[in-house]
Amino acid sequence: MLIRRPEELPGQPMQMDGVKDVTMRVMVGRADSAPTFAMRHFTVEPGGHTPHHSHNYEHEVYITEGEGQVEENGKFHRIRGGDVLFVPPNAVHQFKATGQSPLKFLCLVPVSFDCGKPTPGT
Amino acid sequence: MLIRRPEELPGQPMQMDGVKDVTMRVMVGRADSAPTFAMRHFTVEPGGHTPHHSHNYEHEVYITEGEGQVEENGKFHRIRGGDVLFVPPNAVHQFKATGQSPLKFLCLVPVSFDCGKPTPGT
Repeated sequence: MLIRRPEELPGQPMQMDGVKDVTMRVMVGRADSAPTFAMRHFTVEPGGHTPHHSHNYEHEVYITEGEGQVEENGKFHRIRGGDVLFVPPNAVHQFKATGQSPLKFLCLVPVSFDCGKPTPGT
Repeated sequence: MLIRRPEELPGQPMQMDGVKDVTMRVMVGRADSAPTFAMRHFTVEPGGHTPHHSHNYEHEVYITEGEGQVEENGKFHRIRGGDVLFVPPNAVHQFKATGQSPLKFLCLVPVSFDCGKPTPGT
């Protein structure tokens, strides 16, 4: 059984257009033989944000720490530790850290999309 | 966008042979049109446990609070808040709450298995 904690893994700076100060850790992914979906951990530094984008697969998210703002299709919502979010396929979305400390969250995605393409970051 | 917190949802007692004092909340599931996987929240009261069983789909787990013990195929591991676990398909597993306060965790599963059967609790 795989048991690990985010702080035990090295973080990878998220390399994508429109990203500011985001670090990713793949907690459970294709390298672990995850068959269906992957769990990634993100740290967004204060003032940082994920890309403003959409894709045809969903996100399921759990905010572990901090506070921020999430946009979906032009609507903005406050988020904080303990919130669960579902971002449906094709929604335009972006996460921003608005507090004094980092926003940290788990973001889960299918391991593949479009009939077998590996999902980025899985 | 769906944003909800476990404490906002009514808990359902987990009805399955071999379960003791476990409450489930479907945080994101088939009723929310989750296409690939579902996020469930479990509360195990002190001394309680999930069933000792196996199935041919995986679990990805995040311990949100408390401490406990997880068994996989006869091996026992201590778990605590902040741990991420991957239980692969067909592993015999069981979660027990061993602390003074409830063990709480998110457990994610595919929404279907065996070529389309709805996964229990999704």
